[in-house]
Amino acid sequence: MPLLTFQNPVRFDFGAVKKLPDALKRQGIERPFLVTDSGLRDSGLLERITDMLDTESAATVFDGTPGNPTEEAVIEALQSYEGNDCDGVVCIGGGSPMDLGKAVALMAVSGGPLAQYDPLQGGNKLVKGTAPLIAIPTTAGTGSEASLGFVISMTDGRKLTFANPQFLPKLAICDPELTLGLPQRLTAATGMDAITHCIEAVLASPSNPPADGIGLDGLWRGWRHIRRAAEDGSDRNARWEMMMASTEGALAFVKGLGAVHSMSHAAGRIKELKLHHGTLNAVILPTVLRFNESVCSDPYLRLRQAMGLAPDADLAREIEKLNSDLGLPSGLAEMGLSEDLIKDMVPHAVSDLATMTNPKQVSAEDYAKLYRSAM
Amino acid sequence: MPLLTFQNPVRFDFGAVKKLPDALKRQGIERPFLVTDSGLRDSGLLERITDMLDTESAATVFDGTPGNPTEEAVIEALQSYEGNDCDGVVCIGGGSPMDLGKAVALMAVSGGPLAQYDPLQGGNKLVKGTAPLIAIPTTAGTGSEASLGFVISMTDGRKLTFANPQFLPKLAICDPELTLGLPQRLTAATGMDAITHCIEAVLASPSNPPADGIGLDGLWRGWRHIRRAAEDGSDRNARWEMMMASTEGALAFVKGLGAVHSMSHAAGRIKELKLHHGTLNAVILPTVLRFNESVCSDPYLRLRQAMGLAPDADLAREIEKLNSDLGLPSGLAEMGLSEDLIKDMVPHAVSDLATMTNPKQVSAEDYAKLYRSAM
Repeated sequence: MPLLTFQNPVRFDFGAVKKLPDALKRQGIERPFLVTDSGLRDSGLLERITDMLDTESAATVFDGTPGNPTEEAVIEALQSYEGNDCDGVVCIGGGSPMDLGKAVALMAVSGGPLAQYDPLQGGNKLVKGTAPLIAIPTTAGTGSEASLGFVISMTDGRKLTFANPQFLPKLAICDPELTLGLPQRLTAATGMDAITHCIEAVLASPSNPPADGIGLDGLWRGWRHIRRAAEDGSDRNARWEMMMASTEGALAFVKGLGAVHSMSHAAGRIKELKLHHGTLNAVILPTVLRFNESVCSDPYLRLRQAMGLAPDADLAREIEKLNSDLGLPSGLAEMGLSEDLIKDMVPHAVSDLATMTNPKQVSAEDYAKLYRSAM
Repeated sequence: MPLLTFQNPVRFDFGAVKKLPDALKRQGIERPFLVTDSGLRDSGLLERITDMLDTESAATVFDGTPGNPTEEAVIEALQSYEGNDCDGVVCIGGGSPMDLGKAVALMAVSGGPLAQYDPLQGGNKLVKGTAPLIAIPTTAGTGSEASLGFVISMTDGRKLTFANPQFLPKLAICDPELTLGLPQRLTAATGMDAITHCIEAVLASPSNPPADGIGLDGLWRGWRHIRRAAEDGSDRNARWEMMMASTEGALAFVKGLGAVHSMSHAAGRIKELKLHHGTLNAVILPTVLRFNESVCSDPYLRLRQAMGLAPDADLAREIEKLNSDLGLPSGLAEMGLSEDLIKDMVPHAVSDLATMTNPKQVSAEDYAKLYRSAM
């Protein structure tokens, strides 16, 4: 079974989830705190995993993770973690349970409030440690299982990205089997999240050629398999490749991300709309590709090559075509965002961590234009 | 300055070597053992580095590293390390000082004899630890600064590969400035070592897509810059790219290598011939590419794409052309190897660690044929 060792150990293959009981032992976790969401519980996937655990192991389940995890939900989960005297976190699900579980693991050891760890405010100095954390993705998109970051919608209305090598899960267990039942729409939207990670990471301004190579490989896999995975959810090969593209996206974005993510985060924090992060990325990506093009001619050539496109292909147009084939929305308006929200979102996009690594500088005016154009 | 974090921390850029005094402090090394070779000392490069160290820091220099480091040299160096009460190793040079320094760091903490750590004999269980080690490459080829392996010619005639995550340098300092004075022939031969690592890693049998991506990126860089680096040693951009290709080669070969390396190791252990490892790889590579082709059609397409070649280009022929452009030998005979040595080399190639990961099974008969064809 492939064991990847580029950021954290990643056990990757069909059947990998059977390694969980052994992994808990190795991490010294006797009272695991399982973070998931109600969808995972209803689908029966959670039970398939808890059934593998020792009857003695006193697992506590938290299935109240909201779509874009909030600081309130983190605090509620932390109370349950502490109340049940848990000694480690197991995240089971897509990006939301992973992000929430990482926040709980951090606060359980380093204390609160969460906002103090904002890396843009020097918060990493305050990180004392984290509870051991094992991540088991059930979607192929976020890559959070191999990433040192997590994103939380704060009570004060900001959406903060936290990033620190200590936030890397001690072990990621990537079992494509767990994604076989994922519905078409979620397969498409999370798959576009992975593809966006690969593209934005390759374009991000820091110099990191190994990360570029991983991002291009992830794009190569994702581009070839996303349509098949979405059309036929039982295609095991396509599921394996999409999960790999997702993990590679996260390994690549150790470089940073860009304006697509700044804009998605700023929109995702509007709680009443409950917008899906991967879908936002898919819809915003073409607009940002057009914006960045003037400073990215060489990297765009490599992206096109990885996608098997002609050297002069219109990248933005190709993504729009893919979104349409996958049945994803054609713009932000279709997702329920209205123009009057732009002035609220722009400052959040400007101050987002991902803005710092976009290949082209982005001003508030630029963001306003980009939102309008993505409507 | 780029900091790569895929296996060990790698400080990578012009001027990175100035980080050495700070790195010694961070690693708690007060009495460093500097492992290098006489060529490095004669070139003045060693002095440029020792001049940066505190006058108080009691550095011990070992410049007796032979071309293919031997167990005898390791023991001699270890005696000096212990006699001078050193507390950490700094390797400065190409692959040979790195391999020798890694062996010293291992034996200083885990004890001898070295042969007990042979990974094919379960030797990794005996590794108790290593002295802190910092690696500063002065060639762009071996990538040993980012690799968990090292290779030693043993007193009993074997050439053993040792591999363990604990053998990764605590820090690699990759400063392309240090390669500006490298002569044409050594630039070419070490550069071909890097290119061979990238190619053999991509073809190696284990599944590890991020490593494939890194290897393809390294090949993309190496193929585009090796001629320029060899023709004009002062081309800073070409030097940067070749050093990156070298580091990426090592990150990629965490997957394993293949028959080129098995054959090179078996030839490199013949002490009287003093054959250069990178030159051996360059000369053997075309023959092994022809041998593996029948099982590698898809990966060969990706290699050709990374090299900017036509989809039906003859990979082996392209490498032969490159070797000839670089003034490297056209065969093993030209390097001084005669056919009567084949029966001595074959069993060593068969039992080499790299044989296990060659994409096509290689028998003793195959190796004999491959050696004859590479003559």
